[in-house]
Amino acid sequence: MPELIFRLDSTKKFTDQEKIGHNRWHPDIPPVATVKPGQSFRVDCREWFDGAMHNDDSAEDIRDAPLSVVHALSGPFRVEGAEPGDLLMVDILDMGPIPQEDSGPLAGQGWGYTGIFAKKNGGGFLTDQFPDAYKAIWDFQGQTATSRHIPGVSFTGIMHPGLAGTAPSAKLLAKWHEREGRLRATDPDRVPPLALPPEPKDAILGSLTGTEFDRVAAEGARTAPPRENGGNQDIKNFTKGSRVFYPVFVPGANFSIGDLHFSQGDGEITFCGAIEMSGFVDLHVDVIKGGMETYGVAENTIFMPGNVAPQYSQWLAFSGMSVTLDGEQRYLDSQLAYQRACLHAIDYLTKFGYQPEQAYLLLGSAPIEGRLSGVVDIPNSCATVYLPTEIFDFDVRPSARGPVRIDPGMGAPKASFG
Amino acid sequence: MPELIFRLDSTKKFTDQEKIGHNRWHPDIPPVATVKPGQSFRVDCREWFDGAMHNDDSAEDIRDAPLSVVHALSGPFRVEGAEPGDLLMVDILDMGPIPQEDSGPLAGQGWGYTGIFAKKNGGGFLTDQFPDAYKAIWDFQGQTATSRHIPGVSFTGIMHPGLAGTAPSAKLLAKWHEREGRLRATDPDRVPPLALPPEPKDAILGSLTGTEFDRVAAEGARTAPPRENGGNQDIKNFTKGSRVFYPVFVPGANFSIGDLHFSQGDGEITFCGAIEMSGFVDLHVDVIKGGMETYGVAENTIFMPGNVAPQYSQWLAFSGMSVTLDGEQRYLDSQLAYQRACLHAIDYLTKFGYQPEQAYLLLGSAPIEGRLSGVVDIPNSCATVYLPTEIFDFDVRPSARGPVRIDPGMGAPKASFG
Amino acid sequence: MPELIFRLDSTKKFTDQEKIGHNRWHPDIPPVATVKPGQSFRVDCREWFDGAMHNDDSAEDIRDAPLSVVHALSGPFRVEGAEPGDLLMVDILDMGPIPQEDSGPLAGQGWGYTGIFAKKNGGGFLTDQFPDAYKAIWDFQGQTATSRHIPGVSFTGIMHPGLAGTAPSAKLLAKWHEREGRLRATDPDRVPPLALPPEPKDAILGSLTGTEFDRVAAEGARTAPPRENGGNQDIKNFTKGSRVFYPVFVPGANFSIGDLHFSQGDGEITFCGAIEMSGFVDLHVDVIKGGMETYGVAENTIFMPGNVAPQYSQWLAFSGMSVTLDGEQRYLDSQLAYQRACLHAIDYLTKFGYQPEQAYLLLGSAPIEGRLSGVVDIPNSCATVYLPTEIFDFDVRPSARGPVRIDPGMGAPKASFG
Amino acid sequence: MPELIFRLDSTKKFTDQEKIGHNRWHPDIPPVATVKPGQSFRVDCREWFDGAMHNDDSAEDIRDAPLSVVHALSGPFRVEGAEPGDLLMVDILDMGPIPQEDSGPLAGQGWGYTGIFAKKNGGGFLTDQFPDAYKAIWDFQGQTATSRHIPGVSFTGIMHPGLAGTAPSAKLLAKWHEREGRLRATDPDRVPPLALPPEPKDAILGSLTGTEFDRVAAEGARTAPPRENGGNQDIKNFTKGSRVFYPVFVPGANFSIGDLHFSQGDGEITFCGAIEMSGFVDLHVDVIKGGMETYGVAENTIFMPGNVAPQYSQWLAFSGMSVTLDGEQRYLDSQLAYQRACLHAIDYLTKFGYQPEQAYLLLGSAPIEGRLSGVVDIPNSCATVYLPTEIFDFDVRPSARGPVRIDPGMGAPKASFG
Repeated sequence: MPELIFRLDSTKKFTDQEKIGHNRWHPDIPPVATVKPGQSFRVDCREWFDGAMHNDDSAEDIRDAPLSVVHALSGPFRVEGAEPGDLLMVDILDMGPIPQEDSGPLAGQGWGYTGIFAKKNGGGFLTDQFPDAYKAIWDFQGQTATSRHIPGVSFTGIMHPGLAGTAPSAKLLAKWHEREGRLRATDPDRVPPLALPPEPKDAILGSLTGTEFDRVAAEGARTAPPRENGGNQDIKNFTKGSRVFYPVFVPGANFSIGDLHFSQGDGEITFCGAIEMSGFVDLHVDVIKGGMETYGVAENTIFMPGNVAPQYSQWLAFSGMSVTLDGEQRYLDSQLAYQRACLHAIDYLTKFGYQPEQAYLLLGSAPIEGRLSGVVDIPNSCATVYLPTEIFDFDVRPSARGPVRIDPGMGAPKASFG
Repeated sequence: MPELIFRLDSTKKFTDQEKIGHNRWHPDIPPVATVKPGQSFRVDCREWFDGAMHNDDSAEDIRDAPLSVVHALSGPFRVEGAEPGDLLMVDILDMGPIPQEDSGPLAGQGWGYTGIFAKKNGGGFLTDQFPDAYKAIWDFQGQTATSRHIPGVSFTGIMHPGLAGTAPSAKLLAKWHEREGRLRATDPDRVPPLALPPEPKDAILGSLTGTEFDRVAAEGARTAPPRENGGNQDIKNFTKGSRVFYPVFVPGANFSIGDLHFSQGDGEITFCGAIEMSGFVDLHVDVIKGGMETYGVAENTIFMPGNVAPQYSQWLAFSGMSVTLDGEQRYLDSQLAYQRACLHAIDYLTKFGYQPEQAYLLLGSAPIEGRLSGVVDIPNSCATVYLPTEIFDFDVRPSARGPVRIDPGMGAPKASFG
Repeated sequence: MPELIFRLDSTKKFTDQEKIGHNRWHPDIPPVATVKPGQSFRVDCREWFDGAMHNDDSAEDIRDAPLSVVHALSGPFRVEGAEPGDLLMVDILDMGPIPQEDSGPLAGQGWGYTGIFAKKNGGGFLTDQFPDAYKAIWDFQGQTATSRHIPGVSFTGIMHPGLAGTAPSAKLLAKWHEREGRLRATDPDRVPPLALPPEPKDAILGSLTGTEFDRVAAEGARTAPPRENGGNQDIKNFTKGSRVFYPVFVPGANFSIGDLHFSQGDGEITFCGAIEMSGFVDLHVDVIKGGMETYGVAENTIFMPGNVAPQYSQWLAFSGMSVTLDGEQRYLDSQLAYQRACLHAIDYLTKFGYQPEQAYLLLGSAPIEGRLSGVVDIPNSCATVYLPTEIFDFDVRPSARGPVRIDPGMGAPKASFG
Repeated sequence: MPELIFRLDSTKKFTDQEKIGHNRWHPDIPPVATVKPGQSFRVDCREWFDGAMHNDDSAEDIRDAPLSVVHALSGPFRVEGAEPGDLLMVDILDMGPIPQEDSGPLAGQGWGYTGIFAKKNGGGFLTDQFPDAYKAIWDFQGQTATSRHIPGVSFTGIMHPGLAGTAPSAKLLAKWHEREGRLRATDPDRVPPLALPPEPKDAILGSLTGTEFDRVAAEGARTAPPRENGGNQDIKNFTKGSRVFYPVFVPGANFSIGDLHFSQGDGEITFCGAIEMSGFVDLHVDVIKGGMETYGVAENTIFMPGNVAPQYSQWLAFSGMSVTLDGEQRYLDSQLAYQRACLHAIDYLTKFGYQPEQAYLLLGSAPIEGRLSGVVDIPNSCATVYLPTEIFDFDVRPSARGPVRIDPGMGAPKASFG
């Protein structure tokens, strides 16, 4: 394995490690290490809630998720010679759950979790239909995941980091605050909120202390959304062997990474979300000088997925369109169309015996594909969601025989009203 | 080949054929033929504009597109025994351009077209950035497409019908009019419009005549959008070997199909759109009695894609998020995020020498993938668009060497101001 | 479709057509047509036995197969400017069963056949274990094949021409006769024979007549084997979209093609063999001048398979090694190892209720993969055969539950002793 | 990670470890550990030559390969309750090079090797054409391999164990000796030998000592070939996620595993062979009681490959037939046909500037596919070898432009005459 430059001890909190990562974006968070272009290195990563979620049959932890602590990120890593205007080229050489630790209380020690956030504390893609907190625990065996809370399925995880990115410049950070603040101001009391303002509480900022800590904590951007620097893109296709190009906004690039997922469906629809875990990632970095201008990549990432993602060849797919459940016609709204497609898939799976919540959790975790099939056919967008039929241990295809009924078992644990 | 039950003579207009199809949705359009469950049959299909687009180096035809004539649909085909509440199971056995006709003036005779509609007449996914009309002609060689208007690319088409569906019931039709009317009323003068009202002009309604024709023409729903009956879903994955399940709303199901595409990217982003062509489709139909309730499929389609779609293994992908080009933050808007992803891809391709319009037309035509990567990470959706690198005859990947420059040739024809 | 330059009327014998093909290799068979480099064209092809096999439930036709009439080849096609030393580049644009003919007495009219030759008349890969003649009829529905003689399976055919090649020079022809004659001489009375000598009986030689016919009939090489010119390679991966490079040995290249297969497993193990059919193939040809020396391709073909072959992702595989059924150890014999792998697969399938002959016929027809897994580990070669599990409509995987038992139905017809 | 039940210290010889493995097959080698059906566990594995090969630019180590020490196997592992007649079901959960060790003198510490054995000491698939010893060192970066000795290529390794199997019964062992002895007797002085007799020298037999060691050392079967128990199958498709079923011949099954490969082409044609490495493998075992009879699996393995093997979509393939380089016609000899196909591929690659030995080493290491394309077309078998074009960093396809010429660099080190 390449040199481990950011080590995490599974028995300690994220803030008690020898090197402290961060959970806010800010140009002034000092790098924890420096790497050279052409260098390979290993980074340990902590699951996004730093151990607040447990391997049990309760969803209270999901209900009470401490949202201000996310995401526990490893870094920043300074890349020698990288300067604003360059492209940072990051190869994801390898990644996985915590090496050599097969059991234990921390997600990534042989297990991971998927949750449905309560509408009052986080929400999610289908929060109006699923306002309560639920959880499913997944057990890892090699690259395969199974869950005692969702029987009848078994799949090869499509492992990837949910979050990675370069540090924003001060100017970019200000731009984020300005535009997100304007959005928030349109409905400041919304639950769940439209966007998250800076939150000094629970901020982790590497080696910063004192007034500098307080300043950065007050200014740091939350890590929830994807932004120009990459960020929480949750692109399930950042698998082993992928190459990602990030714009560089500050000297040294100051790259950070975390939020590892054992598996995830397109969209991470339950928000809490993928199969969350702690683990490691091996990276190789290089720099394309002046690459932002050369390739026209200024406020986005570009990437080439790896070639060892799990292969499936038979899919069952569901279409959805941009009409609300109440029958209101929306104009070319692919977000809504995908919600409808996912709800149709959930309805379908309940005919085989699943709880709706089990189906929802499954769509968030398994390597499902979500496609923008039609985006111009006024007034309806058409989105589609594809389930690999091979992940079910029964025949999930429609036929004249009708659906088999599985035993849903204990079901996904639900939190009592909090 | 299976029995040809709907024949089109390429030398004649759609309305001068022995059997007349239709271009509006209405329960009272009489079936042109009856098929039995378990039967296979062939259907000829006319390109959606019934020959208005030409194999030339001008885009005037696109600029002046007669929108009221679309879509020229083959059918309806009555399926014996199908009743409301059933699921109609349609296998797409085979399809292709017009058989035995390799050249000629009709799209599908060895060639097809992609257009960018003018904003004033149709618009499209990126109409604010591309308000003018453009066209590209594609030549077919086996399953491969190349264009004299877009050099440097060659790809295997992912052939599929853009539009297929069952007839709506009177009740469903009324529901469409009500909800789409309400949307239209919010901005009735918008260009392009939010939705299309019934349009008696150019209506084609099979064998209907007289007052019945007039009534149905006044009531018939336009075919532009996908709806509960399937419709213009533009799902590029309805390839040969696919099985699609449609809800049945009227006795006999009254299934129609058309708008064949030689190839298309996810979203059909240029609206005019895919590589459009006339051709044939071989179908097999069957019925699952009571399947709508049994499988919970009441207002959408479900399907299993075929296993002979073109395979690519190396992709170059672009992310986009839900911030407008003007910097306005939108809340979890995947439609916008995909627009931004596509615009990023276009920007990138121009660095290799392409006109922006060539790049836009390419994204509409080639088998690109559009994915809903992140839909919960407030406030930004993350959408991604994947280009298969193998379709380019130069190295399209980013590297320290910088992009090669191709010769864009004559470029895509642009219409003069109409 | 491209210009049809070799037309076959399905109601007439191969020798009664307007243009006559051939069934022997010889440099002096006159071309039936001339094409230019860069030209696309269509060629009709007759099934290899010219209609001797019937769509019925008897295997007498297989038992009595008129081996001297094979293979009915379309061509030769002269390519302008091609000269010895060049490489002929052939693109397989499209192919399929007889277009527009869905039923009828000729294989390719909606159906095809697979046979097991009797040991006394043809033999096959496992002829010692399967000495009698059997047959299975396959019905085509789009690209899918099913058989009333082999229940429980359905698969997408991997269509390809079994035989294609350039004409040999006189020198090359002499070389073939010399080396095959020497082999034959080692066991001249073997049944089945080691190799086939020239056979004037039933020779078809295009437009040749009289003494020239007699000379060429006496000299022409049989078409059974693959040789330096390509020939009967039976490479199942010559699918649509493939590009094949053939050495050119005579001026004009004189390219011929035929023996179309709706599907075939690696090895075409039953010899009669694939799913045999008549049909069409669309070709595009070009020439690389001096390519034989430039690329070192002098006595073989090279090729790039197309990208629309049927995709499967789950396989059940069987290994075999080079020990005979009698327990004799052979030295690194992959031919034997593959025989043993296939026999193991057959044994396995019989546990699910299949006749051994049904299993054998299935392995010859379905898109199975045969791999040379180990070829150096003295003294045993290891060959492996892969069955796509998705072609079975029951669960064919081993488990603690044991195999399900299918009803083998009427079974594969067996010929009475001939 | 699952419990490590067989640990190897990279700084010590295979015989100096806490638990000692073995390098011969014999029923009386005592198990090193016992596992339960349903259990997962980790096993360290030593590269087959126990560290005799070095990361340098010399091939003397290959020339002097100590053949009597192979293969260093981990095990035997006794499986509780497994009995003769059962099938042992082994899931390969994960595997890789030595964890946490990125550099060092032992293959598997960030690097691996491929060698061409000298004809006098080992030989190989093309030993008549390549009689001298050569070596190539491969560097690992994540799942990617590159070599300073073979420029211009980079590929994702298809990792797998080359050797795994159950212990033979005494009866089976006797059968092996008898049949291999008979073969050897037909040409006892052949170089390389036809088969390998028992070899007490360098035998490693776990915890055995004294006279029992001597007896078993004299009786133990060499591990070179695949046999009824699995053994050295070198099936490159035993990738992560694969499930393999082995016949059980002794109580407890006594399963052993080793000879890990970072990558390998079908056939392992250079014999020394794949990219050889030390590493780890995570296994899960279960038992199908009576499975040998139930499924007809008595003298072979059956398996289901995993779904995360590297994906390529564009291949360049070469055919070969069963005529020797001297022009002698052999009868349906797929071993020879594959040799010819590989030689054709090597000839082709030399036109791009490679040494023949570089090309040969590449074919042994990269994930090439070898197929038994035609095995019945008397007298010629047709074998084909497929190279993924994407592994080359130049365009390796044939075209009218002719081949680019790469710089072969230092070339593959060659051993002086030993």
